[in-house]
Amino acid sequence: MIPTLLDRYRRPIEDALRYALRGETRLDEILRYHIGLTDQEGAPTAFLGKLLRPTLTLFTAEELGGRVEDAMSSAVGLELVHGFSLIHDDVQDRDATRRGRPAVWTLWGVPEAINAGDLMYTVAVRSALDAGAEAARILLDATAEMIEGQSIDLAFEQRFVKPDEVLAMVDRKTGALFRCAFELGGCCAGAVAGVQEQLRVIGRNVGRAFQIQDDLLGIWGNGEVTGKPIGSDVRRRKKSYPVALAHARGSDEDRERLERIYAREAMDESDVAWTLALLDRLGVRDEGRDAVRTYANAARESVEAVPFSPEARETLRGLIEYLARREK
Amino acid sequence: MIPTLLDRYRRPIEDALRYALRGETRLDEILRYHIGLTDQEGAPTAFLGKLLRPTLTLFTAEELGGRVEDAMSSAVGLELVHGFSLIHDDVQDRDATRRGRPAVWTLWGVPEAINAGDLMYTVAVRSALDAGAEAARILLDATAEMIEGQSIDLAFEQRFVKPDEVLAMVDRKTGALFRCAFELGGCCAGAVAGVQEQLRVIGRNVGRAFQIQDDLLGIWGNGEVTGKPIGSDVRRRKKSYPVALAHARGSDEDRERLERIYAREAMDESDVAWTLALLDRLGVRDEGRDAVRTYANAARESVEAVPFSPEARETLRGLIEYLARREK
Repeated sequence: MIPTLLDRYRRPIEDALRYALRGETRLDEILRYHIGLTDQEGAPTAFLGKLLRPTLTLFTAEELGGRVEDAMSSAVGLELVHGFSLIHDDVQDRDATRRGRPAVWTLWGVPEAINAGDLMYTVAVRSALDAGAEAARILLDATAEMIEGQSIDLAFEQRFVKPDEVLAMVDRKTGALFRCAFELGGCCAGAVAGVQEQLRVIGRNVGRAFQIQDDLLGIWGNGEVTGKPIGSDVRRRKKSYPVALAHARGSDEDRERLERIYAREAMDESDVAWTLALLDRLGVRDEGRDAVRTYANAARESVEAVPFSPEARETLRGLIEYLARREK
Repeated sequence: MIPTLLDRYRRPIEDALRYALRGETRLDEILRYHIGLTDQEGAPTAFLGKLLRPTLTLFTAEELGGRVEDAMSSAVGLELVHGFSLIHDDVQDRDATRRGRPAVWTLWGVPEAINAGDLMYTVAVRSALDAGAEAARILLDATAEMIEGQSIDLAFEQRFVKPDEVLAMVDRKTGALFRCAFELGGCCAGAVAGVQEQLRVIGRNVGRAFQIQDDLLGIWGNGEVTGKPIGSDVRRRKKSYPVALAHARGSDEDRERLERIYAREAMDESDVAWTLALLDRLGVRDEGRDAVRTYANAARESVEAVPFSPEARETLRGLIEYLARREK
């Protein structure tokens, strides 16, 4: 069941996104398409994502005594940074679809997709700046970390890495924006340094639980729910957390064959089947689930340290639980 | 002769760039390479460009009564935005060299070059923010315009455009950062709105003179000075200002042949020769030179309206004259 928290700020976030992306150039149309406000002809549509990050910002701000209106421009800035990163990410990975629709680069070409990402990032920071210099600084620092994570992830294509290295990458590529979501909320509510530090701990753990769950869904997700076939991330030779676990847990022989398969230009179906069987045999799926549980629990426990009301704590814990169990 | 103004702030700008780009990740090394502080092995080198834009910012700030130290972080931010745009520009145009060295994407690949541009942009805005929210806002607005110009320029690949359309594109793609250079200087010196408006007028005209001169050098520049052979931008089928002039001034027959040639995947040497002869016959080179003169003069005249000292006015006029006459 989707937590009601994901609905609480949805309309005002959508309105604020529409306002931030109201420009009239061709590039602005591409931004509205990508974020899910319009279809590729520019007609209104409803393809927004879960708006998870801005929701966390507004929730944190409000529950720490701030005003939603004061936090909105930084929340929008955060969602737009996430959006910009996806535009460039799809170009880098040559991923042709995004949330079930054609990726920007497939419709407008790579050069224009690079421009679209650059512009969305610009609009994002401008929006955050409306919430003050400190909010903008928090967002820029998180973005720098996210980009570094993206660069580390790219380097993983060249070699196999240990599970801990994957986690360090995840803390940057995914975790930075989750931490930022909470920090921006705290910032807009005038939270003291100690509270900001506690919020960052929640953010890092949420980021890990979220990403490892994402990695599990990328391999074993229900195709009818995720829109991707079983083994999808294996087929793409993505060295996500479960694959790093398999590489660490397997025998020398397993490791060699895994390395050989992942070094190929493309996988055939017998490679995919062998890899899935290996993951099965090594119990990697359960180990991944345990990791999600561990980080979700750590996040849920850290909530205790933040001066939220008891109701707010329960609401946030419910959302964390949902993220750890979600099927898409 | 290179104006001494280009030396006045060179050392402090270089030091500030080195400080802004002091990060320790692989991506930071790429940024230092691109900006010209190091070679591709990371060893110190001296490959910085003219540092024209930050020099204009510091000059304007100082001559309007501000302090160089207060303007430095915004000047560095501007140079880094310029740098980021070149990284992404080279990816978009598949230009293999930049200032006589291999472009970032040729050394580290397109995905990592996209990351490098994104990170350099992040460092840029963070630096500008150190000079205050207003400086950051000026830089972000200019960057948005520059990106729009880049998008318009891309769209020119699909059709021939009128000289006025090229100028409108130039005002964005090149002009935005020149206007920004002056505006940031004014901002850091606390200039009133009227002065900022006058500075923008200078910036726009300098941008046009600079870019059209660039376009002329791209076709008729002395290869031994520019490092590019005669006709270089024709060979790349770049629809720069001189080509737009030729299209506008030529007969129907000229126009058709020009369109046919520019629609091809690649030009052969007889196409290049015919195009160069057409540009010659239509007097486009002289018309281009006249345009450079017109905008340089307009910029020089606008200097009168800014409350600079007489010496500062002469210095700035000298720099504008140099930009309009430069051979590389």
